[in-house]
Amino acid sequence: MKVLVIGGDGYCGWATALYLSNQGHEVGILDSLVRRHWDNELGVQTLTPIAPIGQRLQRWKDLTGKSIDLFVGDITNYEFLHKTLRKFEPQAIVHFGEQRSAPFSMVDREHAVLTQVNNVVGTLNLLYAMRQDFPDCHLVKLGTMGEYGTPNIDIEEGYITIEHNGRKDTLPYPKQPGSFYHLSKVHDSHNIHFACKIWGLRATDLNQGIVYGVLTDETGMDEMLINRLDYDGIFGTALNRFCIQAAIGHPLTVYGKGGQTRGFLDIRDTVRCIEIAISNPAAPGEFRVFNQFTELFSIGDLAMMVKKAGNSMGLNVEVDHLANPRVELEEHYFNAKNTKLLDLGLEPHLLSDSLLDSLLNFAVKYQQRVDKQEILPKVSWK
Amino acid sequence: MKVLVIGGDGYCGWATALYLSNQGHEVGILDSLVRRHWDNELGVQTLTPIAPIGQRLQRWKDLTGKSIDLFVGDITNYEFLHKTLRKFEPQAIVHFGEQRSAPFSMVDREHAVLTQVNNVVGTLNLLYAMRQDFPDCHLVKLGTMGEYGTPNIDIEEGYITIEHNGRKDTLPYPKQPGSFYHLSKVHDSHNIHFACKIWGLRATDLNQGIVYGVLTDETGMDEMLINRLDYDGIFGTALNRFCIQAAIGHPLTVYGKGGQTRGFLDIRDTVRCIEIAISNPAAPGEFRVFNQFTELFSIGDLAMMVKKAGNSMGLNVEVDHLANPRVELEEHYFNAKNTKLLDLGLEPHLLSDSLLDSLLNFAVKYQQRVDKQEILPKVSWK
Repeated sequence: MKVLVIGGDGYCGWATALYLSNQGHEVGILDSLVRRHWDNELGVQTLTPIAPIGQRLQRWKDLTGKSIDLFVGDITNYEFLHKTLRKFEPQAIVHFGEQRSAPFSMVDREHAVLTQVNNVVGTLNLLYAMRQDFPDCHLVKLGTMGEYGTPNIDIEEGYITIEHNGRKDTLPYPKQPGSFYHLSKVHDSHNIHFACKIWGLRATDLNQGIVYGVLTDETGMDEMLINRLDYDGIFGTALNRFCIQAAIGHPLTVYGKGGQTRGFLDIRDTVRCIEIAISNPAAPGEFRVFNQFTELFSIGDLAMMVKKAGNSMGLNVEVDHLANPRVELEEHYFNAKNTKLLDLGLEPHLLSDSLLDSLLNFAVKYQQRVDKQEILPKVSWK
Repeated sequence: MKVLVIGGDGYCGWATALYLSNQGHEVGILDSLVRRHWDNELGVQTLTPIAPIGQRLQRWKDLTGKSIDLFVGDITNYEFLHKTLRKFEPQAIVHFGEQRSAPFSMVDREHAVLTQVNNVVGTLNLLYAMRQDFPDCHLVKLGTMGEYGTPNIDIEEGYITIEHNGRKDTLPYPKQPGSFYHLSKVHDSHNIHFACKIWGLRATDLNQGIVYGVLTDETGMDEMLINRLDYDGIFGTALNRFCIQAAIGHPLTVYGKGGQTRGFLDIRDTVRCIEIAISNPAAPGEFRVFNQFTELFSIGDLAMMVKKAGNSMGLNVEVDHLANPRVELEEHYFNAKNTKLLDLGLEPHLLSDSLLDSLLNFAVKYQQRVDKQEILPKVSWK
């Protein structure tokens, strides 16, 4: 299948592009490379040394004989997007190409506006471009479990059947996102749902949990193919960040009480979920929602698991409960459904001691690259 | 009270600004005047001859002795907005300042993007400006009943209590908006809700129905104060448009079967609802939602009422069922609640024969200004 991966230079996008290429799909990457620019602006670096995109792709070709087309540009530029689609003629589009950090969106007004305009306009452009030239193409859009917030009832996959005053309907699940970034994904979901309804487009919204891990079969083939791994206060996500903190002897930064429960998944499952989605496309006019995570953990429990794994490797790991920079419930009910991808064949890699060991070892290997000034959160929601 | 009316040069905004001024509030108008520009771009004109904003305000002062401050500029320009708020120091902000036409937003990609960026960024800027300098100011934001779509269960006011798998929570009412414009209002609602939660701002989201009528006590004082009345395929809304069509002998343009049921209200109730909202502010941190309409009608029923009123005045009125340019259910359940404003003292002006007579007479008076080329819908959702 011809698959265009928008945001294919990023953490999930890069792993996905190589995985799909390895599975025999014809893959293109569209990326503006703005994430590398934001790293520079913020003065942060990923733990791992990531090569320029051209060199990455050349090495992939040298190793596997497989070519990946590269289109450098921004999907908020409609002319560029439109021409790229006409050139590549995708059968499926995987859209990772958004600003994806909650703290980044909360830095100040400019970052909130940048995040929402960038994400919403990029996705609107994509919907219009698909409508114009590729109405049968399947859009696989990355959403986030954070769209749901923490309601006191079970979280279903995108929709909920409500009985009310003796009548019944199945409606979009109510959203309570927790940052201007998460809000941008809610806006996207509403826009895509509408485009499917009026134009008959087919789309799958993957409400992804927090991704951890760094190695996939493909990115582990060669150091030039290595994936990024963020640990800083802006782009570093729980678990990956904890492992790096443990490796360098920095206390694990649990925000508040640590009772915040979230969905998690291994990056090896991210790439497989994308493949499952494109192999089982949504029907014309269908806006399908999958919750893409494999396990639920509280942040406090995760920290304890990393501490235990670190101790068994001889690392001295402390856990710090920082004042929470976010506004969120720190103790709450959380029970989210995730059966749709399992029903389509996902076999989860569950979080295990061995995975934690390997992540910790990876972090130890690159520990000299860590800038300790960038670990603590600097952005407050208040 | 010091009340800033953003979008105070528009249909609802102008009537509101004069009404609040007449009630003794200290009123400022902030408006970019872009709606007058869009009229020019689209080659359409309101039925009524509206005076330049400066002349309107001078006449208001001459007639009543009351001054209304004018700030011409765009709230998507943060520096302008920020300076205006510091200068005026509002205690309440009424925000009508958005692109408000569904067909306008559906013209093409550019209009969809313009609508969402204009509306979302303007409101984000307002939230940040309030947080910075006026955190206790009450935001009264115009939303739309169209945010809800047409669910098969009763529509509550902003929130719904859901029992699910033995647990219960009160969550934002699920949204199914029917155009990129309506979507922009859904995005706004989510953004404002979040800002109230994290910053403790106070806001009231008024999910307004379709407004009809042209005269309020204030705009009827003098021809220079006359309000706009749109009849064209882009900005003309049901009922106002039907009355003008009846007056000039054009068949009433019912889209599709006409079973589409919506909430309606008289513009004299719009201005009163705003006053009720600002006189009973939301609590700090509260995101309050009122459904602002007084009666439910189907489009087909409305057309029949206009036909009957027109016939009694000797007008020959025909009803045309056009192919529906929109994608929407044409027969559906619709039962929306609207008790919150009634509980706070709203005494509705119900749609009556006399109101229809006066609207029809008004339309007859200005019929020579109608451009018949602009009546039919030209924008398709497909």
